[in-house]
Order: sequence, then C-alpha cells, then structure tokens
Amino acid sequence: MNNETLIENEARAEALEQAIADQDLVATADLLTGMGTTEIIEVLERLNTRERAVVYRLLAKDRAIEVFERLDSTLQSEILSGLQDEDVAAVFAELNPDDRVALLDELPASVARRLMLGLSPTQRILTATVLGYPQGSIGRSMSPEFVTAHPAGTVAETLVKVREQLDDAETIYTLPVTDAGRLVGVISLRDLLRAEPDERIGELMSVPESMGAEVDAEAAARHCADLKILALPIVDREDRLVGILTVDDALRILESAESEDAARTGGSEPLRRPYLATPVASIVRSRVVWLLVLALGATLTVQVLDLFEATLEQQVVLTLFIPLLIGTGGNTGNQAATTITRALALGDVRPRDVLQVLAREVRVGVTLGLLLGSLGFVIASAVYAVPIGAVVGLTLLGVCTMAATVGGVMPMLGKAIKADPAVFSNPFITTFVDAAGLILYFLIAKLVLGI
Amino acid sequence: MNNETLIENEARAEALEQAIADQDLVATADLLTGMGTTEIIEVLERLNTRERAVVYRLLAKDRAIEVFERLDSTLQSEILSGLQDEDVAAVFAELNPDDRVALLDELPASVARRLMLGLSPTQRILTATVLGYPQGSIGRSMSPEFVTAHPAGTVAETLVKVREQLDDAETIYTLPVTDAGRLVGVISLRDLLRAEPDERIGELMSVPESMGAEVDAEAAARHCADLKILALPIVDREDRLVGILTVDDALRILESAESEDAARTGGSEPLRRPYLATPVASIVRSRVVWLLVLALGATLTVQVLDLFEATLEQQVVLTLFIPLLIGTGGNTGNQAATTITRALALGDVRPRDVLQVLAREVRVGVTLGLLLGSLGFVIASAVYAVPIGAVVGLTLLGVCTMAATVGGVMPMLGKAIKADPAVFSNPFITTFVDAAGLILYFLIAKLVLGI
Repeated sequence: MNNETLIENEARAEALEQAIADQDLVATADLLTGMGTTEIIEVLERLNTRERAVVYRLLAKDRAIEVFERLDSTLQSEILSGLQDEDVAAVFAELNPDDRVALLDELPASVARRLMLGLSPTQRILTATVLGYPQGSIGRSMSPEFVTAHPAGTVAETLVKVREQLDDAETIYTLPVTDAGRLVGVISLRDLLRAEPDERIGELMSVPESMGAEVDAEAAARHCADLKILALPIVDREDRLVGILTVDDALRILESAESEDAARTGGSEPLRRPYLATPVASIVRSRVVWLLVLALGATLTVQVLDLFEATLEQQVVLTLFIPLLIGTGGNTGNQAATTITRALALGDVRPRDVLQVLAREVRVGVTLGLLLGSLGFVIASAVYAVPIGAVVGLTLLGVCTMAATVGGVMPMLGKAIKADPAVFSNPFITTFVDAAGLILYFLIAKLVLGI
Repeated sequence: MNNETLIENEARAEALEQAIADQDLVATADLLTGMGTTEIIEVLERLNTRERAVVYRLLAKDRAIEVFERLDSTLQSEILSGLQDEDVAAVFAELNPDDRVALLDELPASVARRLMLGLSPTQRILTATVLGYPQGSIGRSMSPEFVTAHPAGTVAETLVKVREQLDDAETIYTLPVTDAGRLVGVISLRDLLRAEPDERIGELMSVPESMGAEVDAEAAARHCADLKILALPIVDREDRLVGILTVDDALRILESAESEDAARTGGSEPLRRPYLATPVASIVRSRVVWLLVLALGATLTVQVLDLFEATLEQQVVLTLFIPLLIGTGGNTGNQAATTITRALALGDVRPRDVLQVLAREVRVGVTLGLLLGSLGFVIASAVYAVPIGAVVGLTLLGVCTMAATVGGVMPMLGKAIKADPAVFSNPFITTFVDAAGLILYFLIAKLVLGI
C-alpha cells in the first residue's frame, strides 16, 4: 500500500463513517463490500457500540467471521450480545482456542457455559486445556493445536503428517519434536524441505527453546521476540508439550503490555478497547482513582508549606521558585523512572541490579544537578540576590540527585514486590519528590538566609 | 524453559559476570561453552564495552557469528572496532542485507565503504537497494532477498523453486506472486502444500496486502502486526516488489519505536543500547537537553508568581496550595497525553479526529474537575476558610478541564506537524499547565477574595 493508496483508504473510511452517521444503510453496505478486512476493522474500532452492531450485521457471512476473529475480545463480546444465539454459536466455533478463551473471559458465566456446551468435543477439550491455566500466564494465550514430529520419524513421513493436519494446526512452519509427549527438539519446515526424504528427524532437529505454561505471558512473548523465531513451544512442569506460542500472538501480547505500561506511567489504568470506542464514562473511571490518590499524596506538600509558612511570610520571594524547583525534580525523577521501567520491561535490567542502577543514577543525578544548579545560581543571583541564587542553586543540586535516585530505584522496588513497575514510577515519584524537594528547599533557605 | 530453568540460567549468568569481573578468562570461556546464544546475548548486553570485547573474542567462531547477528547495531559496531579486519569482513558478509544496513549506519563512512567493497557483487547490490531508501522508511528495514511465484506457474514448479532458494530467502513461508516484477498476489507455503501439484498459482493466490517502501517503518510494522501475517510485501511507487518485511523484523521495529515513545513521554531521548551497557555520560546527554528546555519553560511560572507577588504577600495561605494545584493539573494533563499518544501510535486515533478527541477530553476534564473540585472545596473550607475553599475548588475545576483538553490535543498537533507526538506530550504539557494553572489560580483568588 503506497502513501497514495493510504490516502484513498482514508477517504473511503471517511465516506463510510459519514454514511453511518447519516444512518444510510444502503450506502454503508455498498462501501463495506468494496473494503478490505483490515480497513473494516479500523472503522469498527472507531464507532460506538450501537453503530458497531449495525455495521457488523451488514457484513457478508464469511467476511463477518474474518472480521470478528481479529477484533479485541472486549469488542467481540459486545457484538455477540447483539446477535442471535445460533449466529453466536457459529462465530464462537470458528475461533481458535486461545482467542476463544480471551472472549470467554469477557462474557457472563452463563453465556460462557452455554457456548462451551455448543462446541464439538475436541474443541471443548482444547479450550478447556487453555482455560486451565491462570490468567496472565502464557498457558492462557498459547495455541493447543500443533503438529508434532517424532525423532524416529523420517522427513517423508513427517511431511505427510504436516499435509494431513494443515488446517487444524495454528502453525506448520515450526514443528516441536516430541517423544512420549516430552519436548526433545524442534525442526522448521524449511529444514524439512531442505533434507532428504529418508533422513530421520532425530538427526535434523535442533535443541528446543521453550517456556513453561505458568510463565508470565509478557515474559514468554518477549522471549519469543528476542529469539526471532516464528513459534515457541510451551511445556508443563514435566517438560511435556502443551501448546505453542506463535509470533503473531506474541506480538499481540506485547502490544497490550506496552499499552498498559504507557497508561500506568501516565498515571491511569489502560483502556481495554480503542480510544474512540471507549465511552467517556470508562475513560473517567480509568483516571479518577489515580488522580484522587495522587491529589491525596499532594496534600503532603500543603502540610510541608504550612510548616514553613513563617519562613514564607518573611521571604515571599522564596515562593516564586517553588513550581520551578519541584517541576525540575519531577522531570528528573520521571526521566530516570521511565528509563528504568522500560529497561525492566525489556529485561535489560533485573531486580538484582538495584545497586548498580542506584550507583549510576546517583552519578547522573549529581551531574545534572551541578549543571542546572550552577545555571540556577547565576540567573537567580543576577535577577534577585546572591543568597537567593545560592538557595536555588543548592536546592536544584539536591533535588536532581534525590529525584534521579528515587526515580531509578522505585520501579525496581515495584518489580521486586511483584507489582507493575510502571505503577511505581512517574506519578508516585512526582508526588514524593515534590514534598521532599520542598523540605530540602526550606532547610537550605533557613541555613543560607539564616532565618 | 520453566521458572526453575529460568532461575538456573540466572545463576549461570551471575557466575559468568563474576568470572568476568575477576578477569578469570578460563572460567569465563568454560561457562560460555555451556550457555545458549540467547543467554550469552543477555550477558553481553549487561557488560561495558571493554568487557564485552573480551567475552566476544572468547566465543567459538560460529557461535560468535550467531551472537553477533542478534545484537543491536550499536553494540555490533563497538565489537567490530575491536576485531581484526579479516574477521570484520567475514562477520559483515554473514549478515542479512537489512541488518547490514543498520550496522553501516553506525560505522564511520571510511570503514563502511571498505566493508561494502569486500562484499560479493550480489550481496553488494542487495545492500545497495536497501541503503537507497531514506532513514526511517520501511525500505531501510525490509529484506531484499525473497522467493517469488509466478501466477502462470504450477504448484509443483513453485515448490521446486522454493527448494532451490531455501537458503537465500529471508522467508519461504509467504511467497509474493509477481508478474513482470509487479506484485499481483501472495500465497502461503501452507496453501502450496494443500494444493494439487498441477494447480496454477494464479488460481490459488490471494489479494496481496502490501506497503510502499517509502512508508514510515513503524507504520508498516504496525500494519504487519495488525494483519497477523508472517511477511508483508514491500513495493515501490509502480507497485513493483522491492522487498519483504518479516514479522520478526516488524517486532524489532516496534520494540525500538516503543522504547522511543517511552523515553520521550518521560522527557528524555531514547538510549540507543541496553541501560547497563550505556555509559553514564550518554545517559546524562540523553536527559540534559530536555531538562534544560523544561527548566527554561518553568521560569514562566517564576514570572507569573512575580506578577502576583502582591497578592501572595496579602494572602500567604494561597502559597500552600500551589504545588497541589499545579501537580493535579500536571497529572490530569499527563493522563490525557499518554492515552492519546498511545492511541496515535496504535492508529486508533488519527489527526483528523482532533475535534472528537477535544470534545471527549473536555467532558472527561470537567467530570474529573467537578469531582476533585468539590472535594477540594470541602476539605480546604474545613481546614482553612470557606472563601479559600471556594478558590481551591474552582481552580481545580478549571485546571482539570484545561489540562485534559491541552493534554489530549497537544500530541495530535505534534502528529499533525509530523513531529513525534510523544515529544509534545507529558513534559511540555506539565510546563504549560503549571504556568496557565497559576494564572487561573490567582485570577480566581482575586475575584473571590476581592483583592
């Protein structure tokens, strides 16, 4: 798709949205037939619940299923609630076990049970295996449908087996090699095609990378990404193969993990659906709790200032620098926190590195502090008075050092106590640094100005 | 890999790092032989330049190349600078054209030129095609090595062709179908295996999704991810096939894009290498410019306060709420900015949606403002005085509304003027909201308290 084509699609999407807004069903249906699945999905993700239900019902049957399979489970469940029972059952049966489980989590228990009963026995068992693993584990997002090879089997035999199971398996490009259920190797279809028909899998297979089904889904997905492989075998505690994680599922897992981190560092809960498809009320809900918590934390600053009110009355000029000082502290803290949160997510830094991180951030903080501090000293001395300049400069040095250190260590503590590091980063740090920075400021002021 | 195994690896990695710290080359070499490529890479990413060079030279030849291929280009260039010319040439020749180009961007022009001349003619041409596209375009990250099918060809013929080119092509699992160089379709290896030997590709192929080589790399990678496909054909303006983007490369592109967004929203430049492998000096560099810019912006708040110094002298109590008020404003702004920045990155929101976003964020802001405002009014009235409570409450209402609106719209403006939306988000908003919030605060105070 060239930039030109991108623009065409844009235009078509706009026309469609217009038709929907005008409730012109004929025009809508016409436009839909001319559009690709991806385009349709992009539009659906921008509509409100009612509009989405209408548009979905206008889709041709197979197209409808294609589209449904690729929607987020939250949107899927909404659409289902608007369909006839028999259509629901049909759509549900079409899904892959892993996607089906994601959807089940969104549905009311009664509906979920009814849908499960509607499945074919095999599909029900497959779905059950996935359902058996705890939320957030990779077992929940893996596909239990895979083709395996046997070490004693020949290339020819294996290729036949692959051909037979072409339609059931999630991927045929990476084959786990199992012996009595245990994962003993892995072989790519590329290697199979390269080899002689009578060669034995056992001689061709390579050492398998794998993950335990109980491992955190994001960690497994990140591992799959780092390995640059198309599929990662998932095993149970006895190293028996229970599923396979395909790279496209890994990608989906990572994307939602990134969204979560982004939201948390911004001090809100992640939206569980595309922004424009989220009701304003849920957006408010995703933010209000955090905002209240942080505001409550900020009352600390009120108390600190209350404490030093006498000092302020003597030197109102000190007030002028309050936002600058705590702002700079907040920025320095956020810089450190964001870097470390990201490094933790990527596995570049581990909780045991806490001392190394501490040492580095102190050095960074001091350097930044000296720079900003001397600058602050010069300017504030010039504009106001040298003592004031000294107070501002020294405070900047102190605040930067403290902020960088706290900002670097907080996320690691979060990780260490198994909380989301992102939660422990930016917003909290700002609140903490604000209060601590103010205390530092007034202590230095009292010292330097002798009040 | 089970959690148990993960812990084992942890232990091994720690032992290795110890051996390296002790400069015990024998122990280091022993430990290395027992480790998987991924483990070794994880360790390398945690060492400093000198240590990394030592460890790399201890690796067996093939292992060394395996490892090298999967390192970031920044680390690759460092390692190269420590190797003999002939080794450099050998390693360089082993790389895929796209990885090679990424590395060339890191190397001094003279070295780059020499290395290019060392390549085989074919490899040199392939590398040149990739080099021909602008930085940041998908053309730069695509692979120019692909197997194509012809619509008139039979399944049997195509499978033979695939077998012949097994080793050169980046992927054989998705085959672009071209006619006279033009992309006319795409067929998966799965479909080929499913079909009868004498069927024609033209009847089996499906409509191709593709991207123009000039398209932004992140957009293309995101598209590849949304489609849940293994490879996306890349075409030139005349729709001629010029390369292919594989999902694992798409993943790599997305990861670095995420890191960049994370850093920018945190108010710093992205580190171009793993945190522990980054010298403190470069970390400082990645933060200092932003910090200075923001501090400069914050001097606005000093001027605002200077403006209202008289008011402050009359009512020192107003000072107490300054950090709380601007803090809350900053948080509300960041929440909105982070949500919208993310939505833009995911393509959930487009610049043309600016009015819709504006409308939504105003509503969100007012709702949050009413909540926090009334709360602030009650508390401040109880602790201090009703007029003070009124000032605080009204300011909170105003600040939240303004912050959410600004926070929501700023990233979209950023995107519209083709800048990185993340840059225009959190740090800038905080600075802006701080100053604007203070003005609002004092105007309301003057009005309510009649000073």
